[in-house]
Amino acid sequence: MKISIIAFDDCTDLDLFFMWDLLNRVEHPDWQVQILGERCCVTSETGIRVQTHGRLEDANTSDVVLFASGKGTTRKAHDELFLAEFNLDPERQMIGSICEGSLILAALGLLEGKPATTYPTARRELEAMGVTVVEKPFVANGNVATAAGCLATQYLIGWVVEQMLGREERERLLRLIQPVGEGLSYDDFPLPATTNTTAMYAN
Amino acid sequence: MKISIIAFDDCTDLDLFFMWDLLNRVEHPDWQVQILGERCCVTSETGIRVQTHGRLEDANTSDVVLFASGKGTTRKAHDELFLAEFNLDPERQMIGSICEGSLILAALGLLEGKPATTYPTARRELEAMGVTVVEKPFVANGNVATAAGCLATQYLIGWVVEQMLGREERERLLRLIQPVGEGLSYDDFPLPATTNTTAMYAN
Repeated sequence: MKISIIAFDDCTDLDLFFMWDLLNRVEHPDWQVQILGERCCVTSETGIRVQTHGRLEDANTSDVVLFASGKGTTRKAHDELFLAEFNLDPERQMIGSICEGSLILAALGLLEGKPATTYPTARRELEAMGVTVVEKPFVANGNVATAAGCLATQYLIGWVVEQMLGREERERLLRLIQPVGEGLSYDDFPLPATTNTTAMYAN
Repeated sequence: MKISIIAFDDCTDLDLFFMWDLLNRVEHPDWQVQILGERCCVTSETGIRVQTHGRLEDANTSDVVLFASGKGTTRKAHDELFLAEFNLDPERQMIGSICEGSLILAALGLLEGKPATTYPTARRELEAMGVTVVEKPFVANGNVATAAGCLATQYLIGWVVEQMLGREERERLLRLIQPVGEGLSYDDFPLPATTNTTAMYAN
């Protein structure tokens, strides 16, 4: 189970690392998550340099391909060299995007005649590409899904994990990041056997 | 207005970049956000290398100091060289933590006799340091605050921004990251004047 996140220059930090962090909490021996880009590093909107784990073409043999978002997305949605790297197939892959990432899905022809969501600033641009834009946090059509608004990353990753590993793992995973007292409880974590650390303080 | 985020090896990606991303969306000419660490780079729990913008001692002249979280936190809460870098003062600084970061606040003597929150896995350890741990997403005592559960980052950053810039900027900021249709609306973004991009698609 190979999951690839596609990053690019001027992508949004929160969306990229929300997907990455959540996916890395999945507990399954065959689960492999990687960030792919055109070069060894991409630089986010805020100037964070992120080392990539592989090149874009590796997306084509991934089970799941998720596109990041941000100010750099429009440029990539019109970058023929970038787009030409992808040979994605919803028949054999789950494909998704967060926020403006839907522009790339549209440019790849994956949203033709389908409803989709996007970040408000990209709404007009996505509509102009022939997509029916709906004001929803998450829209799935078979194996292609769009999510919008950074915190809707939960729905996108939840969709991937539920399809791949079932509802129980989805619920376990999403509970881990909820606010304490608002979805995450101290009772969710039975205390483990005494460790060196707790022993230091034990009465 | 200088805001410093303290990062360290084996910190949680989501918590670090959630704080960083949100703080970078604040609109104010004097707003300055930086990630501080012991070295030029720290490596997160999942192996992401993050370049720091300055050394720990710069926290002591910051207006706001926020501690990251994760598996590496316990080690730092017992690292005398790390702790000795800080000379923080709640009389002149806002000081906060997300998730396990509260262990460092406690180690710095900032939570003595106060209620605080933390990630469930750190609850027992924080109690053993003499802190009254409460199952809440956010607890503020004057200028010292703890938040817990990754998505409670919103409350922590909202607290900082409201204190520094007022309620209106807090509300604007937090709206930007909500899911579309669940807190963020397409109507929140009036369409800007025609840009080159939209002109390409305009009918």
